[in-house]
Amino acid sequence: MYYPEPISKLIDSFMKLPGIGPKTAVRLAFFVLNMKEDVVLDFAKALVNAKRNLTYCSSCGHITDKDPCYICEDDKRDRSIICVVQDPKDVIAMEKMKEYNGLYHVLHGAISPMEGIGPEDIKIAELLRRLQDETVQEVILATNPNIEGEATAMYISRLLKPTGVKITRIAHGLPVGGDLEYADEVTLSKALEGRREL
Amino acid sequence: MYYPEPISKLIDSFMKLPGIGPKTAVRLAFFVLNMKEDVVLDFAKALVNAKRNLTYCSSCGHITDKDPCYICEDDKRDRSIICVVQDPKDVIAMEKMKEYNGLYHVLHGAISPMEGIGPEDIKIAELLRRLQDETVQEVILATNPNIEGEATAMYISRLLKPTGVKITRIAHGLPVGGDLEYADEVTLSKALEGRREL
Repeated sequence: MYYPEPISKLIDSFMKLPGIGPKTAVRLAFFVLNMKEDVVLDFAKALVNAKRNLTYCSSCGHITDKDPCYICEDDKRDRSIICVVQDPKDVIAMEKMKEYNGLYHVLHGAISPMEGIGPEDIKIAELLRRLQDETVQEVILATNPNIEGEATAMYISRLLKPTGVKITRIAHGLPVGGDLEYADEVTLSKALEGRREL
Repeated sequence: MYYPEPISKLIDSFMKLPGIGPKTAVRLAFFVLNMKEDVVLDFAKALVNAKRNLTYCSSCGHITDKDPCYICEDDKRDRSIICVVQDPKDVIAMEKMKEYNGLYHVLHGAISPMEGIGPEDIKIAELLRRLQDETVQEVILATNPNIEGEATAMYISRLLKPTGVKITRIAHGLPVGGDLEYADEVTLSKALEGRREL
């Protein structure tokens, strides 16, 4: 028993977070002791509120504190396009871009036979249900550009083909500001394959 | 407003911790959303309890949930030695060694003219008061081996000289497992200076 119990419990709690080992947990716990009491209370409240008050939007699956979420509810959004992403964080990334004005659909994962995640484990059925509404004209597949994301995009595109909805995949290529010299072969071959006339 | 309010508040709280920037804060906040509710509640409780129930021992200044702390209260401890350290974390480091059986005195800082911290800003007066009790025979100065720590050790040793108590300073030298080749000159010169007959 090196630490008094209240602080060892706090250290244990911090250690449950990703990327925080014993040394960092001790540093954070001692930092908390020197924080103002109301700041610590706010922190504790924020933890409980985030866990209790956040749910997933029943329509798009994005994280939200009211259902439907602010994106699904927004009248100014283009309801004819749905952008399919793997994770709520991907929605945030798209929103930060400020150029996309359609709706989203969060799959909450990607097909991964390695991890035993099949099509029925992610929100693909929910996507199909949304497409029965005839306002949707395009589905943009914005799953991650890795094996699982590609497999998921491929699976969904085949599944949706019969519906006649336009299905697109976000472009692969060199990242802006990147260096051709350091690009891996697969990215480079995708960039070449996806070349466009100017 | 990219994030629903409960999660943006949690992100803000995480960002107040040292070494946690915006990206890590987002990652931690989303991780919390996927934690079990009782684990999150324990975390929140641990934060509040650590802040509310921990104080500093009125005798040695170590962090504790009861006053006096478990070290000062322990009858098996040698009350004739006091080890002076800068920080409660230093007490923990000493205790982990499992070889020291005396008492401690936490200064809560070190003299640093650069940062405007003088002798009256750290717990030196409290140390003097403890020495009036005649059971203390040795004071080990275990402040950090840097400029502030050295200055503090020097100041205290001069201050305590008239009391006749034995004053010692922890040894400077090569760390065990270290490499002579990579030691800096100051450490090497201290190691040479502090050489002992075998």
